[in-house]
Amino acid sequence: MEFTAGMIAAYLGGEVEGDADAVVSTFAKIEEGRPGALSFLANPKYEHYLYDTQSSVVIVDREFEARDTVRATLVRVTDAYASFAKLLELYAAHKPRKKGISDRAEIAGDATLGSDCYVGAFAVVEAGARIGDNVCIYPNVYIGDGVTVGDNTTIYAGVKIYEGCRIGSNVIIHAGAVIGADGFGFAPDEKGEYAKIPQIGNVVVEDNVEIGANTCIDRATMGSTVIRRGVKLDNLIQVGHNVVVGEHTVCASQVGIAGTSKIGRHCMLGGQVGIAGHLTIGDNVQLGSKSGISNNIPEGTVYFGYPALPISRYHRANAVFRNLPELSKTVYRMEKQLNELTGKTGE
Amino acid sequence: MEFTAGMIAAYLGGEVEGDADAVVSTFAKIEEGRPGALSFLANPKYEHYLYDTQSSVVIVDREFEARDTVRATLVRVTDAYASFAKLLELYAAHKPRKKGISDRAEIAGDATLGSDCYVGAFAVVEAGARIGDNVCIYPNVYIGDGVTVGDNTTIYAGVKIYEGCRIGSNVIIHAGAVIGADGFGFAPDEKGEYAKIPQIGNVVVEDNVEIGANTCIDRATMGSTVIRRGVKLDNLIQVGHNVVVGEHTVCASQVGIAGTSKIGRHCMLGGQVGIAGHLTIGDNVQLGSKSGISNNIPEGTVYFGYPALPISRYHRANAVFRNLPELSKTVYRMEKQLNELTGKTGE
Amino acid sequence: MEFTAGMIAAYLGGEVEGDADAVVSTFAKIEEGRPGALSFLANPKYEHYLYDTQSSVVIVDREFEARDTVRATLVRVTDAYASFAKLLELYAAHKPRKKGISDRAEIAGDATLGSDCYVGAFAVVEAGARIGDNVCIYPNVYIGDGVTVGDNTTIYAGVKIYEGCRIGSNVIIHAGAVIGADGFGFAPDEKGEYAKIPQIGNVVVEDNVEIGANTCIDRATMGSTVIRRGVKLDNLIQVGHNVVVGEHTVCASQVGIAGTSKIGRHCMLGGQVGIAGHLTIGDNVQLGSKSGISNNIPEGTVYFGYPALPISRYHRANAVFRNLPELSKTVYRMEKQLNELTGKTGE
Repeated sequence: MEFTAGMIAAYLGGEVEGDADAVVSTFAKIEEGRPGALSFLANPKYEHYLYDTQSSVVIVDREFEARDTVRATLVRVTDAYASFAKLLELYAAHKPRKKGISDRAEIAGDATLGSDCYVGAFAVVEAGARIGDNVCIYPNVYIGDGVTVGDNTTIYAGVKIYEGCRIGSNVIIHAGAVIGADGFGFAPDEKGEYAKIPQIGNVVVEDNVEIGANTCIDRATMGSTVIRRGVKLDNLIQVGHNVVVGEHTVCASQVGIAGTSKIGRHCMLGGQVGIAGHLTIGDNVQLGSKSGISNNIPEGTVYFGYPALPISRYHRANAVFRNLPELSKTVYRMEKQLNELTGKTGE
Repeated sequence: MEFTAGMIAAYLGGEVEGDADAVVSTFAKIEEGRPGALSFLANPKYEHYLYDTQSSVVIVDREFEARDTVRATLVRVTDAYASFAKLLELYAAHKPRKKGISDRAEIAGDATLGSDCYVGAFAVVEAGARIGDNVCIYPNVYIGDGVTVGDNTTIYAGVKIYEGCRIGSNVIIHAGAVIGADGFGFAPDEKGEYAKIPQIGNVVVEDNVEIGANTCIDRATMGSTVIRRGVKLDNLIQVGHNVVVGEHTVCASQVGIAGTSKIGRHCMLGGQVGIAGHLTIGDNVQLGSKSGISNNIPEGTVYFGYPALPISRYHRANAVFRNLPELSKTVYRMEKQLNELTGKTGE
Repeated sequence: MEFTAGMIAAYLGGEVEGDADAVVSTFAKIEEGRPGALSFLANPKYEHYLYDTQSSVVIVDREFEARDTVRATLVRVTDAYASFAKLLELYAAHKPRKKGISDRAEIAGDATLGSDCYVGAFAVVEAGARIGDNVCIYPNVYIGDGVTVGDNTTIYAGVKIYEGCRIGSNVIIHAGAVIGADGFGFAPDEKGEYAKIPQIGNVVVEDNVEIGANTCIDRATMGSTVIRRGVKLDNLIQVGHNVVVGEHTVCASQVGIAGTSKIGRHCMLGGQVGIAGHLTIGDNVQLGSKSGISNNIPEGTVYFGYPALPISRYHRANAVFRNLPELSKTVYRMEKQLNELTGKTGE
């Protein structure tokens, strides 16, 4: 796909400054620009890259004023970042989509597939599964008995979905994710040996969810582990049995949420955060990276640390922590002084 | 499967209170009860749910005394929780088991399979592998050369077992787990580049072990990495080369155990615990979630924190930590006072 | 393969002490020695094992002086450890290599394969992929459209490589790793819902890299996520979009590196280290296990802790931390004393 600066300006409702026939065929960050690439400049911090960039066309805000010579053709628009994102989406939407049902896929006789689905080689769709329209199932995917998958969902290579789980529409599940493995439930006997507690629930993933590579979401002991609409989970995340993750919550990589905890809506969990079991995290909560949460967290708050504290308290305490050696010396010097003093004044 | 309250009471040796013909066909938590479901009440904290539950039948302890009207039929038994678990197991045991050897599986000519095995489509069993009776091998599983698998073991979709590993009987390995990848062993040269140290050992998983989804257990450099009988490993756990995990130890999700460390029997490791290499963790040790362990831990102790301390010491120190800003202020105020004082008394 | 002590000594340029006809067919750690095994003794800490070992042959340093009776045959060499590693490599190099292209693999018509490749059953090589010579692709591997793979690279079972990624020569990728899944990029709207930012970049893995089991390396938003030559990544590691990991850096298991961070050359990252986004870690940096990094780290330094500090500062502060209860008591006792004193001297 090739476009000229003029075509881009016309599409975005912007104006060309420079060569309207300049051609681009790819995208690049302005600091990694190269001939034939389209870049954008929105953050003033990156302005200096504009004067050196090799990119052929750069989208800038309408009111941007260059302070030096610009070699690239500029396209001036109302919101440079939003316009660039719009073009990226256009580009991604035109990426050729995989098509057809491989005859090397294994699809149970009574499974149903909607229209325009893709099922790659060596994928398995087990008995009673119901797959919606426009679903992409990449090679080596496993979809267990009775699983349902909504329309326009993409399931990348090697995803495993255990029996009875329900996946919504417009969901993206990245390679290697495991949905619906048994929750970690065992009952110890008097000898300290563990008997498995059967995990007979399932996982429900609502619409517009994205699940990262090699992330694991365990099935409920009874009932459902639920990932609500709009949730975004990064890679290598653990979601324990009977957890509920609220609408439009985002979790960065390697987060772990132990069994039965409830995470509110619109929360942001940093990378490697750990949440103990049976907790309630309120709506709009932010948890800093690597925080360890062992208590309920009230809505609208920001916590950090291990064990976590309200973030400003943690940072103030931590500022003292790093100076503890000096503080400690001061105290023991004072103690000596004080002892001498009390000895003296005691005379 | 449908059962009446009367049938359940007869099976459990309990008594019906209410409609002995009330029918259930599924299980539900008492707080998520619905018509046709069986629930239980064991923890008095949940008692209030009993008076509202939609479940048709609820198992309670024989001596339970209701303080309000109960709509559900009760089945009174000696131990409500144990009885419920017994029914769950019965239910799980009757779940139809996968059967047959798919002709789309790839089984080496000299591999052996016991009786009543299931091997799903696109599973691979390499040369010299020996699989016991009643083993379930789900689709897209890879079983390397010379691997042995004991009776009644279940290997879910997409598990990869490298050559020469030995898996016991009654083992469950969840989807995506990797058993026997190379240990992380490299020798740096004088330029700081790394040469691979061949990893020629294997992994031995004893009987009655459960291994979670996407968990990785590395093969030994020489000898064996060993997971002893009855161990339960949750999802996304890392077990390094030459580690030994003792009998009936349980590890929650995302635990990491570095090379050559030995974990005792009947230990409990919380989620995201990290254990450095070449350590010895005694029997019956408990390590709180997210603890970082860099020293040997004596048997029977409970540690917590990063770096970990005996748990009560950690919590006492941490209680001061959160008040460090105040403590620090107090110290510097005192220092000023003391300086004034010594100045004064020094006159 | 069987070798005598005499053959081993001849190969290594060493001398036999004992039975030159003693036969070995395997390797063992000296503390796990058994008849027919070859062991080595380099670390004096392990010397006592030498007098009890069951191993038939033990490689020792030329100048080693036994202080007790040794039953095993000794082979004396200049560097026992290096000699042993050399034999291990020889052994590993002679392990029979998988061969042939399975007719149950799915290879696109326009994909190219070099000479002497192995492609296992149920592996998929998509359109336009270019695979070098001597490449081993194990069963159930997925290689997306247009991926390139250099010579002598090994890709173990169930690895997934998304379209357009470039893998170098002499690379090893362990089972279940995912290369090139979408970076975690979303733009929130005014309602706090997230729109996906298309991730149109790729992943470049240079030569001599090893990537652990179930490790995930995300593709760049634009441009490339880059793993430079000689890097060694352990299992279950997360590498975010647009990250660059410098030459000959090693990362232990479960490390997480957030988007756009740059890691220098010859760094060592301990297990479970977390690095926030948009940071620069200098060359030759060491980060202790479980450290949480939220600032740039200057080259050649060693950091530890959460939040991380220069390691000696962290350990000194932490030494006070564990005694905070006592320090706190001292302060409040002194405060009382001081108050009494000021009251008294104030008279």
